[in-house]
Amino acid sequence: MNAAERLGKRADALMNRTRLLQAAQESFAQAGLDLEVNDIISQVQMGVGTFYRHFGSRENLLRAIVAQTLEDAHAQISQAIEPYGDDPRAALQALVTVQLQVYQRYRPLFATMRDRRLTKLFDAAQREALYALVLDPPRRVIEQGMQAEVFRQDLHRDLAAALIIGSFTSVFDLLGDNYPFEELEQQLFQSLWTMLTK
Amino acid sequence: MNAAERLGKRADALMNRTRLLQAAQESFAQAGLDLEVNDIISQVQMGVGTFYRHFGSRENLLRAIVAQTLEDAHAQISQAIEPYGDDPRAALQALVTVQLQVYQRYRPLFATMRDRRLTKLFDAAQREALYALVLDPPRRVIEQGMQAEVFRQDLHRDLAAALIIGSFTSVFDLLGDNYPFEELEQQLFQSLWTMLTK
Repeated sequence: MNAAERLGKRADALMNRTRLLQAAQESFAQAGLDLEVNDIISQVQMGVGTFYRHFGSRENLLRAIVAQTLEDAHAQISQAIEPYGDDPRAALQALVTVQLQVYQRYRPLFATMRDRRLTKLFDAAQREALYALVLDPPRRVIEQGMQAEVFRQDLHRDLAAALIIGSFTSVFDLLGDNYPFEELEQQLFQSLWTMLTK
Repeated sequence: MNAAERLGKRADALMNRTRLLQAAQESFAQAGLDLEVNDIISQVQMGVGTFYRHFGSRENLLRAIVAQTLEDAHAQISQAIEPYGDDPRAALQALVTVQLQVYQRYRPLFATMRDRRLTKLFDAAQREALYALVLDPPRRVIEQGMQAEVFRQDLHRDLAAALIIGSFTSVFDLLGDNYPFEELEQQLFQSLWTMLTK
């Protein structure tokens, strides 16, 4: 096997892994933690051997799904708030809107984030790294708002970021069936803005 | 069987049900949705027949655990805020403190509240009733604060209540390992107070 062939094989392997992980993310969106490895590999028409060569175990696959989904979410949210680095109000508005979209899209993951079947797959340092990824976008909006002296100077950055994250899930879980999406989005922005500014 | 005997039998049955449900709540606190009916009945030394006479199925038991736990939590929280009906600041402080205690105590339940294995056990009307129970204490604190004109008059009562509920879980899940309990409690109160008052 020459260099070009080796490169081609490596590219194939990477593509297989990506296809498996994408199918797994979709399967997770439907079935959550009850997803079946057999469903995933039959969907992408690969053998069991290929699956285990890439992921080693169902647990490793779940770890990869969670990490990949949180990284995808982080990328989408970062991209949405990036243009508003010097406008804290617009940044918070963009954050609320994109967080809600991301939350709706990845709802099955967020619904099981605290499930012990999931949390036990990660050690303390890994959990810490994933939480930091979740907290990063609201934390950046808060820091920019404080630097611009639009937000209060006495905010506890981490706490305010965690509170913002929690508000998305609880508001939509508890009230999502009773109020139009736009009303909740608007009111949520208003409440957070009040908390952060005066 | 005379009237006194019938009454005695009914009291026994009620006590059996209570003992089963208490053991089930403890088992749920350890194992979450993976709890085993056999563990529970062997713990209280009852037969399988007694269990099924009282609960009919594992699903019914899970429904009973959730409803009972949310009612217990509601009773504890209501009792803690009740003395402060005319002092919105003290009421919010009491709410933050007791919600945190309740959240820590019933953490396994709250961690699985959005798990589809649990939510599918309840129809829309039942879910609505349980959510109303969760939202009731913060909603009462908000209404009293608005009536006393200490809180803003433009608050969206349900949204503010849902946001308060969400803030407890996210702050302690995301930051609980990194900050002392008292610091988070104090900062959470301060953030919510800022958001709610004018």
